[in-house]
Amino acid sequence: MDGYICLDIGGTNIRVALFPLKGIQPVEHFRIKTIVKEQKVEERVMDLIKDIWPKKGEIRGIAAAAPGYVDSHKGVVLSAVNIPGWSNYPLRKILRNKFKVPVLLGNDARLAVLGEWRHGAARGHHDVLYLTISTGIGGGVISNDKVLMGSRGMATELGHITLLPYGPFCSCGHRGHLEALSSGPAIARFVQEQIKNGASTTLTQSPTLSSKEIAKAALKGDLLAKLAFDRAGEFLGLGLSNLIHIFNPSCIVLGGGVSLTGELLLQPVRSALQKHILNKEYLNKISLVTADLGDNAGLIGGLTYLKTNEL
Amino acid sequence: MDGYICLDIGGTNIRVALFPLKGIQPVEHFRIKTIVKEQKVEERVMDLIKDIWPKKGEIRGIAAAAPGYVDSHKGVVLSAVNIPGWSNYPLRKILRNKFKVPVLLGNDARLAVLGEWRHGAARGHHDVLYLTISTGIGGGVISNDKVLMGSRGMATELGHITLLPYGPFCSCGHRGHLEALSSGPAIARFVQEQIKNGASTTLTQSPTLSSKEIAKAALKGDLLAKLAFDRAGEFLGLGLSNLIHIFNPSCIVLGGGVSLTGELLLQPVRSALQKHILNKEYLNKISLVTADLGDNAGLIGGLTYLKTNEL
Repeated sequence: MDGYICLDIGGTNIRVALFPLKGIQPVEHFRIKTIVKEQKVEERVMDLIKDIWPKKGEIRGIAAAAPGYVDSHKGVVLSAVNIPGWSNYPLRKILRNKFKVPVLLGNDARLAVLGEWRHGAARGHHDVLYLTISTGIGGGVISNDKVLMGSRGMATELGHITLLPYGPFCSCGHRGHLEALSSGPAIARFVQEQIKNGASTTLTQSPTLSSKEIAKAALKGDLLAKLAFDRAGEFLGLGLSNLIHIFNPSCIVLGGGVSLTGELLLQPVRSALQKHILNKEYLNKISLVTADLGDNAGLIGGLTYLKTNEL
Repeated sequence: MDGYICLDIGGTNIRVALFPLKGIQPVEHFRIKTIVKEQKVEERVMDLIKDIWPKKGEIRGIAAAAPGYVDSHKGVVLSAVNIPGWSNYPLRKILRNKFKVPVLLGNDARLAVLGEWRHGAARGHHDVLYLTISTGIGGGVISNDKVLMGSRGMATELGHITLLPYGPFCSCGHRGHLEALSSGPAIARFVQEQIKNGASTTLTQSPTLSSKEIAKAALKGDLLAKLAFDRAGEFLGLGLSNLIHIFNPSCIVLGGGVSLTGELLLQPVRSALQKHILNKEYLNKISLVTADLGDNAGLIGGLTYLKTNEL
C-alpha cells in the first residue's frame, strides 16, 4: 500500500499513524511512551517508523509534529523542554538520511490547527485561532487561509503571553504566562495552594492531583474546585480577548484535555470575553468551539502538511 | 495631472496629499485641524478633497486612513473614539458617491505598516511588527508578505493587549493595556502622580505636561523623568516580547512621536526584551528600528493600498 507516515512526538507519548493516499482514516496507528531508561527518544522514533512501514508499497513522505520551538523551514527542533537532548536537533535531516523520503517537521499545535481547519472544527473559516490546553498551552493561527509561521517558523507560542507580570511561574521559567494560569497543572497548583491555606474542599492534597479530578469534584458541587476552573477560565478569557484584538478571528477552537471539561471552563471564558473585549463587533458571529479531531489533530495536520505543503 | 489622493484622518489633524502616478513624493499636501466648532468632520474631509483635486487630469482613486476600528472589506469606520459621530460610518460609500472614483479605507496603523514595509524602514522583510506610539498605541503586522487583517479587517489592535490586569485605565475604558502604560499620556500621567505623591523633580505639575517635556528633562538628568521612560519602556518591552512570541517577526518598526525620543525609550525596551523573551533565537537577527516615513507613513500606505490593493 502506498501512503504517508505521520508522527506526533509529545512529552509523554509518541504516536504514529500510517495513512493511505486518500482520506484521513489511518490504516494503522499506535503509540509508545516517549521517555524510557533503555533507549534514546530518537531511536524510539526510528523504531516506530520501521514498525509501521508497510511491507509492500511506497511511502511518499513522513511528517513529524514536535513540541517546543521548531524551525519548520530548516527542519530543526530548536528546543523541546520535555525531550532530553533535543536542542538544535536536526530531526528532518536525520529522518531523511535514514528513510530516503521527503520529511516535514512542524510544531505540534501549528500542525493541529492545520488539521482542525482542513478537516475538523474550523472548516470553512479563513481566520482561525486554536489553543490546546493540557499540560501546557500551545497555539496555532490561520490568518487569511495561511498557517501563521513567522520569519523562522517559531510564531504563535500563545501559551507564553504574559497576563500577570508577577504571577505564578510558568514551565518556561517566566512568570504569569497564560500557561501558568490556565493549563491543567496551573489549575491543580491553585487547588493545592488553597488546601495548604486551609480552604474547605472534598479534595485531598496530593502531588498527583489532576485537573480531571478537580473537574469531577466541581461537577459534584465542590466550591474550591469550581473556583479553580472559574479562575483558569477567567484568565483564558482575558488571554483570548488579547488574541481576538490581535487576530480578529471568525472561529476559536479549544483543544486538549482541559477543554474536555466543556461548560465548566467555557462559561467563565465567555463572561471574561464579554468583560474584556474592546468592541462587541469582535464577538459578533464568532464561533467558540471545542476541537473535533481530539488526539489526532497533530497527525492529521501532519498528513495535510505533506499533501499540500501548507505550512 | 493624473494621480491619487490620500488622506490621513487623525484625532488632531486631517492630512491630505496628491500623489502622481509614479513615485511616493506628493505633488501637493497640506493639513487642517480635525475638530472645529463650525463644521462636521465629514464636511471638512469633503472640502479638503475638493481643494486638492487637480484642475486637469484624472484621479484614479482615493485612500483614507482612519483611526479606530475600520472594516476595510465593507469600507466602514465601525468606531473612532476621537471623531464625533463616526460609529458604523460608511465613509467609503459617501466618498465614492460624491467623487465617483474608487475609494479604499484602512485603519491608520495598518496603512502605516504597509507604507513602512514597501517604502520605509522594513523594506525587504517578510514578517514585520509595527507599533506607533503617540497619544495612543496602534499596530500593524506584515505576516508572510501580507498585511494581517483578520476576518473583518479589525485585527492588530496592538495597543489594547492587557499587560497589567489591575493597572491604569486605558482610553478605551479597560485597564492595564499597553496603551495605558507606554503611550505619551501614560508617561505624563505617571509623572503627574509621582509629583502629587511628593517626588523630587525639575518638572512642575500641569495638566498639559507632555511626554516631550518629560523626555527633555530626562536628557538633562531628571531622575523622575528618566524613571517614567524606563517604566514605559519596560512595559513596551514586555508587550513586544508577547508580540514576538506571537508573530516571530524579523523586523520591528517603532513609529509615532514617543519613539522619536530614541535611546531614552529603546534602552529599557531592549533590556526588557532580554528579560522576557522565551528563547534567544527569537531575537537573533531581529531588527529593532524607528520608522522612516514619519507622519507620511499612513499617506504612503494609502497610496500603496490604492496601487496594489494589498490590504
